[in-house]
Amino acid sequence: MERLIRSTQELLWERGYVGTSPKAIQRAADAGQGSMYHHFAGKAELAKAAIERSGAELRAAADAQLTGEGSASARIAGYLERERDVLKGCQVGRLTADPDVIADPMLRAPVAETFEWLRKRLAEVVAEGKRSGEYPDSLDPQRIAATVAAVLQGGYVLARAAGSSEPFELAVQGLIDLLPEATK
Amino acid sequence: MERLIRSTQELLWERGYVGTSPKAIQRAADAGQGSMYHHFAGKAELAKAAIERSGAELRAAADAQLTGEGSASARIAGYLERERDVLKGCQVGRLTADPDVIADPMLRAPVAETFEWLRKRLAEVVAEGKRSGEYPDSLDPQRIAATVAAVLQGGYVLARAAGSSEPFELAVQGLIDLLPEATK
Repeated sequence: MERLIRSTQELLWERGYVGTSPKAIQRAADAGQGSMYHHFAGKAELAKAAIERSGAELRAAADAQLTGEGSASARIAGYLERERDVLKGCQVGRLTADPDVIADPMLRAPVAETFEWLRKRLAEVVAEGKRSGEYPDSLDPQRIAATVAAVLQGGYVLARAAGSSEPFELAVQGLIDLLPEATK
Repeated sequence: MERLIRSTQELLWERGYVGTSPKAIQRAADAGQGSMYHHFAGKAELAKAAIERSGAELRAAADAQLTGEGSASARIAGYLERERDVLKGCQVGRLTADPDVIADPMLRAPVAETFEWLRKRLAEVVAEGKRSGEYPDSLDPQRIAATVAAVLQGGYVLARAAGSSEPFELAVQGLIDLLPEATK
């Protein structure tokens, strides 16, 4: 079952939901049809488990950067600049291009919850920065949180288009240039 | 031939390349197999023509906002805030989630060229804003251009995840808040 979920995560990341067949999952997991349908009612239910797992991994990785010592801007910059396999794209974000994921409430839910959590967590860090006097009062935490999350997701799009991580890095550096610097 | 290209543009936007079969194109274009293969060697060649057309449309729409009167920041804000069918996503950007588009140099080229053009055009506007004294000298046009393009592409991702245009609008407003305001 663990191998089925892992293999589905990888296939969804690489090929998307529409491009992933039950046969491909069984092959990648080295599992028989019987084993797959013993654990999961079908491709959608297995995909749901895989997307939930990918969402949990994204949240854990983001939280590791956003929680802890350091100013709010240092933590946000650390999160933006953390090492990433840029050309692979985001394993959760890429699913929004999948019409069958977006059309199925069961499959869209873990995608929606992941980004809702991320924006909320980023907004908390911005709010901390305001309370500590690091950011000006005028900064809107919800807006800035959405901007930070969007720059990463859009950075992947630009990088995959270019076949190079350069536009991702430019976009991230541009945002860091625009964010107010910690003055204390 | 025009109908084949239009239908392919729509199907690529909605279903992506992997999710679009030659049969679906023929059905949407109300064209026979003979007509399709008379004009195009196959699905890839037709998709190339459709992606080139979508890229040209994206460039024309962006250029209409970025060229003309008004300060650089007003033009960039106008471009960011222009009315969009946010939940549909970007017809060019969404193709970067298509592994068969990214893996095929012929199909990736018009996607790459579109965003290269867009980032170059945005960088020109930022540079104009620096020359006119609107933006500080420290602003890096290439970085800011990539950030602007990324916020739009990532805004689509967040909106489709949420099933609502709200995160797109928050991300755009956050970026506008962060960009230096025109002081003259």
